[in-house]
Amino acid sequence: MSVLVVGSVAYDGIEAPSGKVDRTLGGSATYISVASSFLTSPVRLVGTVGNDFDDNDRQLLENRGVDLEGFKKDESGRTFFWKGRYHDDMNGRDTLDTQLNVFEHFDPVIPDSYKDSSIICLGNIEPSLQVKVLDQVTNPKLTILDTMNFWISGAREALEEAISRVDVLIINDEEARDLSGKSNLADCAAEIRNKGPKYLIIKKGEHGAQLYSDRLLFSAPAFPIPTITDPTGAGDTFMGGFAGWLSRSGDISEENLRRAVVHGTVLAGFCVEKFGTERLTELSQSEIDERYDTLQKLGEIPQRV
Amino acid sequence: MSVLVVGSVAYDGIEAPSGKVDRTLGGSATYISVASSFLTSPVRLVGTVGNDFDDNDRQLLENRGVDLEGFKKDESGRTFFWKGRYHDDMNGRDTLDTQLNVFEHFDPVIPDSYKDSSIICLGNIEPSLQVKVLDQVTNPKLTILDTMNFWISGAREALEEAISRVDVLIINDEEARDLSGKSNLADCAAEIRNKGPKYLIIKKGEHGAQLYSDRLLFSAPAFPIPTITDPTGAGDTFMGGFAGWLSRSGDISEENLRRAVVHGTVLAGFCVEKFGTERLTELSQSEIDERYDTLQKLGEIPQRV
Repeated sequence: MSVLVVGSVAYDGIEAPSGKVDRTLGGSATYISVASSFLTSPVRLVGTVGNDFDDNDRQLLENRGVDLEGFKKDESGRTFFWKGRYHDDMNGRDTLDTQLNVFEHFDPVIPDSYKDSSIICLGNIEPSLQVKVLDQVTNPKLTILDTMNFWISGAREALEEAISRVDVLIINDEEARDLSGKSNLADCAAEIRNKGPKYLIIKKGEHGAQLYSDRLLFSAPAFPIPTITDPTGAGDTFMGGFAGWLSRSGDISEENLRRAVVHGTVLAGFCVEKFGTERLTELSQSEIDERYDTLQKLGEIPQRV
Repeated sequence: MSVLVVGSVAYDGIEAPSGKVDRTLGGSATYISVASSFLTSPVRLVGTVGNDFDDNDRQLLENRGVDLEGFKKDESGRTFFWKGRYHDDMNGRDTLDTQLNVFEHFDPVIPDSYKDSSIICLGNIEPSLQVKVLDQVTNPKLTILDTMNFWISGAREALEEAISRVDVLIINDEEARDLSGKSNLADCAAEIRNKGPKYLIIKKGEHGAQLYSDRLLFSAPAFPIPTITDPTGAGDTFMGGFAGWLSRSGDISEENLRRAVVHGTVLAGFCVEKFGTERLTELSQSEIDERYDTLQKLGEIPQRV
């Protein structure tokens, strides 16, 4: 199956207790594309960058086999830039700078050659743009949406429309509570699924991830990461691993959704080990498989005797 | 295998968003004994109560088949009483009243007929008393200790001695951080295991439980409870389910420790559904088995394909 990824391509400045980087390739579409490229092909990217975008970063995406027909360089300005600082416990962060630049005028036009894509990954962008993508694709097998608190509070109506039209919503526990107004995650899930999506995945960081349909279907452990260097992009990477696995296997059964959640967990775990996409781009298939098997063993509950 | 339980027997007054009870049977030894009695026999209790202790509550323990030779009624005063109020999110609570009463002079004398017990459950009491119990037992196969923040900050030295002498320490994530001074749970576990215990179980409430030895061995999901009525005793009940399963099976292999953790999870899940021990005392074996199987399915990660 083919994967279509729509989202931001950005440069990030990151400060964390582990160190800092002034400018590294980031953005939701970048992380989703790179992560899913380890599992499947074709991965088709729709995004926009500015006149400062480095050829080496374009090369990085090409080296991962990402189809860049929908990747546009807007010479009128600079690339979206975000700068943030993580707190000591890595669980919170402050935004220090946001320069939308050319991303402010991002209009996701889906190339004809992308329109028949099977799996649609709507990275975290303005909800009305996510809807615009859904209006252009012709034959999706599975549509997946990520969002964040900024849109939950600031673009509620458009977000509800977008959510009502997708198959899978992937958010974290804090966002699930904000979106539903509930506290207990099972209650959150019931409330959110009433808004439309058949499946809801709640990411809980170090506590793993949960997959809900009409009830909790699957509870996945997190991969234990000894040292978290940079959490940026972990959620996007989760979506990339999830979608990439489904595309590779061509199977969207509930059993295989479990494997997809575990692949999302595995890829996200690698992502946070180094700054930006550094750890992801040096990954091997055997490393991914090894962590899948480790997680499987970690969560294994033996039969009663 | 036989189980020895040493801890508090108390009356609790509980206020929660779900309602309130003025006086219900509680205490660590009560919850541990009742929970383990659903899985194994004999369960031997050492505890003390006062002159106000109700015959019906003694009867409740007898009905569960708990051996009460070590259960003493001290006519000089009243039973330990604790009163608390849970916050709206059920994740915190305030203590409104603590009357130690006869429990202030609790001296755990282990009857001769109990001394050869195989599994020793040291419920949450003063650490020096936990050590005193360890000094009296003659042939333990597995010693298990629970504690709380009160002792971590207030009786550190005695607690470290107690911990150094047990096989399994069971604490929650907040206690693990306090005891180790670390933030990341894997770091907490490494630090705490250096203090002596071969195994460490970290209870994470709605996020499940983790079993560590020299590394993370097992990550168990929580059982999804739609409505939590009263969290009191959930941790003690976890220990009772854990110890009860090990006793029933007579097997302390690492594979079977997983089953024990899941039984602890299952029993603790029932515990919180009603006030006090109410839900526990109406349990059936088939209900326990059904939830075990549900948890097994919930956490199942299919093989890669």
